[in-house]
Amino acid sequence: MSSDALLSPLTTGLVDAVSEEAVLEALVRAEVGLVRAWAEVGALSDEDASSIAVALGWNADAGRAVDHGIDAAALAEEGIAGGNPVIPLVPVLKRRLPPEQRSWVHRGATSQDIVDTALMLLARSAVDQVLARLDATEAVLATFARDHRDLVAAARTLGQHAVPTTVGLRAAVWLAGLRRASARLRGLVLPAQLGGAAGTRASFHELGGDAATHLPARFAQALGLDDVGAPWHTTRWPVTELGDALTQTTDALGVFATDVVTLTRTEIAELAVSDGGGSSAMPQKQNPVRAVLIRSAALRAPQLAATLHLAAADAADERPAGAWHAEWPTLLDLLRIALGASAHAERLASSLRVDEQAVNRNLGLSGGLILAERLSIVFTPLIGGDRMSQLVAAAAAGTDLGELVRALPEALSLDVDALLDPAAYTGESGAIVDRIEDPA
Amino acid sequence: MSSDALLSPLTTGLVDAVSEEAVLEALVRAEVGLVRAWAEVGALSDEDASSIAVALGWNADAGRAVDHGIDAAALAEEGIAGGNPVIPLVPVLKRRLPPEQRSWVHRGATSQDIVDTALMLLARSAVDQVLARLDATEAVLATFARDHRDLVAAARTLGQHAVPTTVGLRAAVWLAGLRRASARLRGLVLPAQLGGAAGTRASFHELGGDAATHLPARFAQALGLDDVGAPWHTTRWPVTELGDALTQTTDALGVFATDVVTLTRTEIAELAVSDGGGSSAMPQKQNPVRAVLIRSAALRAPQLAATLHLAAADAADERPAGAWHAEWPTLLDLLRIALGASAHAERLASSLRVDEQAVNRNLGLSGGLILAERLSIVFTPLIGGDRMSQLVAAAAAGTDLGELVRALPEALSLDVDALLDPAAYTGESGAIVDRIEDPA
Amino acid sequence: MSSDALLSPLTTGLVDAVSEEAVLEALVRAEVGLVRAWAEVGALSDEDASSIAVALGWNADAGRAVDHGIDAAALAEEGIAGGNPVIPLVPVLKRRLPPEQRSWVHRGATSQDIVDTALMLLARSAVDQVLARLDATEAVLATFARDHRDLVAAARTLGQHAVPTTVGLRAAVWLAGLRRASARLRGLVLPAQLGGAAGTRASFHELGGDAATHLPARFAQALGLDDVGAPWHTTRWPVTELGDALTQTTDALGVFATDVVTLTRTEIAELAVSDGGGSSAMPQKQNPVRAVLIRSAALRAPQLAATLHLAAADAADERPAGAWHAEWPTLLDLLRIALGASAHAERLASSLRVDEQAVNRNLGLSGGLILAERLSIVFTPLIGGDRMSQLVAAAAAGTDLGELVRALPEALSLDVDALLDPAAYTGESGAIVDRIEDPA
Amino acid sequence: MSSDALLSPLTTGLVDAVSEEAVLEALVRAEVGLVRAWAEVGALSDEDASSIAVALGWNADAGRAVDHGIDAAALAEEGIAGGNPVIPLVPVLKRRLPPEQRSWVHRGATSQDIVDTALMLLARSAVDQVLARLDATEAVLATFARDHRDLVAAARTLGQHAVPTTVGLRAAVWLAGLRRASARLRGLVLPAQLGGAAGTRASFHELGGDAATHLPARFAQALGLDDVGAPWHTTRWPVTELGDALTQTTDALGVFATDVVTLTRTEIAELAVSDGGGSSAMPQKQNPVRAVLIRSAALRAPQLAATLHLAAADAADERPAGAWHAEWPTLLDLLRIALGASAHAERLASSLRVDEQAVNRNLGLSGGLILAERLSIVFTPLIGGDRMSQLVAAAAAGTDLGELVRALPEALSLDVDALLDPAAYTGESGAIVDRIEDPA
Repeated sequence: MSSDALLSPLTTGLVDAVSEEAVLEALVRAEVGLVRAWAEVGALSDEDASSIAVALGWNADAGRAVDHGIDAAALAEEGIAGGNPVIPLVPVLKRRLPPEQRSWVHRGATSQDIVDTALMLLARSAVDQVLARLDATEAVLATFARDHRDLVAAARTLGQHAVPTTVGLRAAVWLAGLRRASARLRGLVLPAQLGGAAGTRASFHELGGDAATHLPARFAQALGLDDVGAPWHTTRWPVTELGDALTQTTDALGVFATDVVTLTRTEIAELAVSDGGGSSAMPQKQNPVRAVLIRSAALRAPQLAATLHLAAADAADERPAGAWHAEWPTLLDLLRIALGASAHAERLASSLRVDEQAVNRNLGLSGGLILAERLSIVFTPLIGGDRMSQLVAAAAAGTDLGELVRALPEALSLDVDALLDPAAYTGESGAIVDRIEDPA
Repeated sequence: MSSDALLSPLTTGLVDAVSEEAVLEALVRAEVGLVRAWAEVGALSDEDASSIAVALGWNADAGRAVDHGIDAAALAEEGIAGGNPVIPLVPVLKRRLPPEQRSWVHRGATSQDIVDTALMLLARSAVDQVLARLDATEAVLATFARDHRDLVAAARTLGQHAVPTTVGLRAAVWLAGLRRASARLRGLVLPAQLGGAAGTRASFHELGGDAATHLPARFAQALGLDDVGAPWHTTRWPVTELGDALTQTTDALGVFATDVVTLTRTEIAELAVSDGGGSSAMPQKQNPVRAVLIRSAALRAPQLAATLHLAAADAADERPAGAWHAEWPTLLDLLRIALGASAHAERLASSLRVDEQAVNRNLGLSGGLILAERLSIVFTPLIGGDRMSQLVAAAAAGTDLGELVRALPEALSLDVDALLDPAAYTGESGAIVDRIEDPA
Repeated sequence: MSSDALLSPLTTGLVDAVSEEAVLEALVRAEVGLVRAWAEVGALSDEDASSIAVALGWNADAGRAVDHGIDAAALAEEGIAGGNPVIPLVPVLKRRLPPEQRSWVHRGATSQDIVDTALMLLARSAVDQVLARLDATEAVLATFARDHRDLVAAARTLGQHAVPTTVGLRAAVWLAGLRRASARLRGLVLPAQLGGAAGTRASFHELGGDAATHLPARFAQALGLDDVGAPWHTTRWPVTELGDALTQTTDALGVFATDVVTLTRTEIAELAVSDGGGSSAMPQKQNPVRAVLIRSAALRAPQLAATLHLAAADAADERPAGAWHAEWPTLLDLLRIALGASAHAERLASSLRVDEQAVNRNLGLSGGLILAERLSIVFTPLIGGDRMSQLVAAAAAGTDLGELVRALPEALSLDVDALLDPAAYTGESGAIVDRIEDPA
Repeated sequence: MSSDALLSPLTTGLVDAVSEEAVLEALVRAEVGLVRAWAEVGALSDEDASSIAVALGWNADAGRAVDHGIDAAALAEEGIAGGNPVIPLVPVLKRRLPPEQRSWVHRGATSQDIVDTALMLLARSAVDQVLARLDATEAVLATFARDHRDLVAAARTLGQHAVPTTVGLRAAVWLAGLRRASARLRGLVLPAQLGGAAGTRASFHELGGDAATHLPARFAQALGLDDVGAPWHTTRWPVTELGDALTQTTDALGVFATDVVTLTRTEIAELAVSDGGGSSAMPQKQNPVRAVLIRSAALRAPQLAATLHLAAADAADERPAGAWHAEWPTLLDLLRIALGASAHAERLASSLRVDEQAVNRNLGLSGGLILAERLSIVFTPLIGGDRMSQLVAAAAAGTDLGELVRALPEALSLDVDALLDPAAYTGESGAIVDRIEDPA
């Protein structure tokens, strides 16, 4: 269980990928990756590298450094003095090796190399999970959009009925936002970090000579991360682009969730969720809890992403005094929020039920005024703007707009029934739904 | 250990007051407080209230509900469906009582009553700890300011030497910010919440009749919280004022820490910390780690406080769909950040050592230009602005300003030594230090 | 017209108090105030001070320095090089005086003294206007609450009908948030700034001797600002507390506006605004434009307040390199946002019309389930929890809950009509409305 | 002059591309573009389209709609009621045409189509200017990096000397951040908007039949904007990706500016700016004003970008009630901030002067400890970790580390002079500078 589980239902049970255990594993894995990279460049034998890796905690079956056996809590306490957990981690790892192998641990590296790389390892796995959850959500919404391609509904702007739209188009719009967010996540560059004490990599060359030239690329490769050619100790775009893409994800999910909250309102009721949440006081409640939790995510993420930008802009000297440290918990939180929001979204999408009767009832609420734009387009050239305004005003005062239009002499030659049919005024709604691409 | 300990050295070991265990205790304590309140208004006997309290987990010696024996992790999982942990907590608590007493648990309340009250209980205890840490920091800084009342130093504006100041005044300025923040924290209203399902308190009156009128005040009293006379389900100023005051605290600590980072720079070195942190790469490093961690806190807090405001502004209907849920982890994080920053500040203040030689050396760096303002005030009326500008330019080009001034015929009758003494141009620095009040 | 008027309908026409002209006047007024303060401490005759003030632009009738005749645009251009407009302003002002009087302009001051003081002068007048607009809004809402004290309506939590409330209570809740915000604004400390080059006030003492001791207090007094006893060049709580209070204001207005947007929704329609806005496409639209604009304010303010906190926390050295400069446009924007939002709120409150039929219709929508909490309180002890759950489920499936209850044998002796009357389950709604205090 | 010029030296004189005049021109240009698009799809003759365009204000020479002659201030006032300036703009434009042509103005469009498109037109031109300024800055920094490729300097981490680096590498790091930001700006999708009243495009089809199918693409083409295939009324990634990229730009500029502020500090003085700003109080000051202003930009941008994300996440219904309106001034501010920061950066880069003596002096400050990492790598295997720690401690206590090392028997066979040469421990610094690509 992670801390804050009780008061973080958004993320409870959904954030193993960035748990405290995962953080520690990623730190150890980064150290193991460095050992392997030294072997890749020929400075160490593969056999030695493998035996060191196992001693440090590498588990080949898991493909992770899960066998380290280190007490995270004790390590965290020891990490306060130096301000990061790598300082005490290095001697702990070294003690697991015979003296002659110890110098291969953390060889040439600085704490920032390991912390940054571990954060990117965590990001890699969390982003992959978020993407899987988004893919599933998108698939459900694509089906939902197609299933309701031609279900005409009232579109609302500034809360007021506007013109007809379709339930299918609404879902296609949610989907469009999610797909753009997915594309951003897929396009992320998540690099390993290997700069040495101050980003010059002098230590690696001191220790490895020319062989060190290829060390950073091998390190990235060993860990499945990107190589950006230079240290990024103080050029923090890998962190901010990640934060921005995660926030773009919660933005898109937020739109979906906000619409669900609106459309499940008791008075609107066009949607219902099949797994509504209860109440400790009111026995009848069926709350759209997942949508509520997603909305809480969308309210929180942008400010966390802003913190990452502030830290990036303050990445001074060859390592900043505070900005770097501010990134860690902020980025972990953003990853968790995106994990939670995407998981709930997948289940929310699957739980949606459309009440067609309610959709129709709402569509008819305005006594035909929902077609005022169309009627204005057709009749203003025939009857002039002033008479058109009078018609609309009369309809707003309670008379059915259809009746008013039918009574016009100018309407005699027109197919008024067709003009008054909301289904005949949905523009490209169907076409946009039809253009939804199936995932490759 | 809380989650994120490894990558949150700011808070590691310092946030027991808002740990997951503390959250659960506060939720149970709020429920116990409600039972007591029913007894206070005469609806239940004191004996029954006491036996129920004990059954729910009340420990009279601890003055806390620490004996509840509930598995927080399991409860958190069960809380996802309804979106909060109170929904599953209530039946767990009821099962500890004989059937005839069960209706006294959560009697008339809604989940929000318990969650909001628990958050305020956590805030009460966290704020008290922050205040204690600030008090200690302020006491150390007051002594520091007095000890260095007359140590003249270079003041810097936009990074450039400006005029003389004193080390004592600098500390007095840090102190002024901290004291204002302490005053804000001390002035906070931290209310209990008791509104029922939608803030009308109808359920309490249904269950308790007129006796319910006094229930909210008794509930607040039983828990040591404030009573604000009405439910605040959707008027969230108790949360935002708390967030603002915590951020004002990290602001003030941030100024102190930022100055420490500057003043411990290798080239400036007017201050050193006696417990500097090491490095995993560079054996000589003595990093001002506590200042660095405090700066990371100051970078994070404002955006979390902004989230609380956004949630407050979106507190729609009689309970908002997401805004309320966004408050919980955000407020807990802010409390933790303030706890961590204040704890490190106390130790940072105690660890500061002044290098008087460095202070003097820096003061002399500009060849007298640090007194240019004073000399301009004195000599411009005597020699005119143009000649004064020439003098300053010559000094900026390398000639000592003192020598240039001494060479002026107009200076013959003046006590140039006194004019060139930085200690004679510190204005109210000493007086401001002398006005530092001792804590009552 | 201020810039951004076209795309800032929130503030267009409402922000004269912080226009570019007002900024320039405040800068000049601060310089005039300093001249007067020198006279107040006896260093200058009142006659000379008055003649200087007039020459600088003081207009006694207006009580403002509106006769300065300075070209703001040209001054702004000249201010870029030094990073603030005071540097070029001082020689402009001096040139208006005979040579022997020039030294009284900006005597002993630094740019920050004038900029900070001018910002507080602007804040003083903007906050007063915001308060007047809030007072008017509060008065209208108090009347509204009393007028609809007993109009029973559906309360909504997480978008779903919950229990009954009243239209009056809803307004009383809006009012409570506004009143707390007003109290915060009224309690603000808005201090003059007078610290000299680096906050030591040495220049004032060099120029004025002991008389300078009282200069800061006289300066504050001359300008109608507060005196906080010491310079606050780097202790920026006057700025952040101002930003926090302005944001608390937009928070409270945001809740009001968000509820108006919800309650004017076509399907809900419990409220209408008498001055709804039109559309460029749809002739029938009556959009709650003022509520929409207020909501835009509430979305923007918190992040601007966060910037002020970040700047406060980074107020390093004796004047920070960037943080101070970030405050100026941010604070001006926040003042404008609060001015705009409060002005629209006053008119929004006055434009609200209640549709009692819609209120009643919505209240009845759930077939009695809105009283499920009450019925559960009454009947669960009589029929047990399981049967109660069955009743609620049957009602949720479509049967009227009232009928189901009336059919219970256990209900025979009860006044079921009274139990099913929403008006009899509004708790303290009326009492809370009755406790609304009239403004003193 | 734009408003806030006096207290926005960051942007004064640099933001014509997003002035009030530019906003109005963009709105008119969007309307002209729609007329042209109708002609492109064959619904209107090219001649009519051209004559309408001219009547609306199109100036072929300027390639802009600058001849509209509309009073922006009056239009802004009229725009309040409907919440946007397009509502009053449309009749103003129509009145310029003979009655039979009027229906071609705003044909089928909604206000959001015009406002969103105008914002993207403004963004297009502002982003192009920012890119030009970044290109120039990058070119200067590339030369600077090459010029100082081998100038060895002290690297600093957490404010403390760490290991050697080079002045060239430092500039290459600034450059790397700027280039990534430029790439993001260049990759932006800035789409036209054409959705009609609620994103279905029904009005366009009603008016234009099948020809309307190609209208959106022609509209985008006519305006030099992108076409994204569907309306983005409530999928706001074009806005947030723009805000993120602008913030990434100020992040990268912020790092550069922050380092300049540090390196121009009186005690460090490795850099000086040739156009330093003065002071109203201190005649000697040469403040790095441009760096200060850029830092103020970097502090402000992230929170504005966060507002755009919050608005994107709240883009509910078919047009949100407030979120959309919050975007406008926020995005304009972000564009201005990026314009100002990039303009100052170009001039700051050109004004930088390196003081090689200061660079050398600082490098030597630590008595050789700046090479402690290297010596530790070399000597720890020879003398063991304990003796190495003693050496470092002795050096930290004041003895020159070089002397201590030379005295070691184990050093006899080593080239200690080479080991103690900072220039021999700069790793890939030179290589990274050499890899700087010249702009295509």
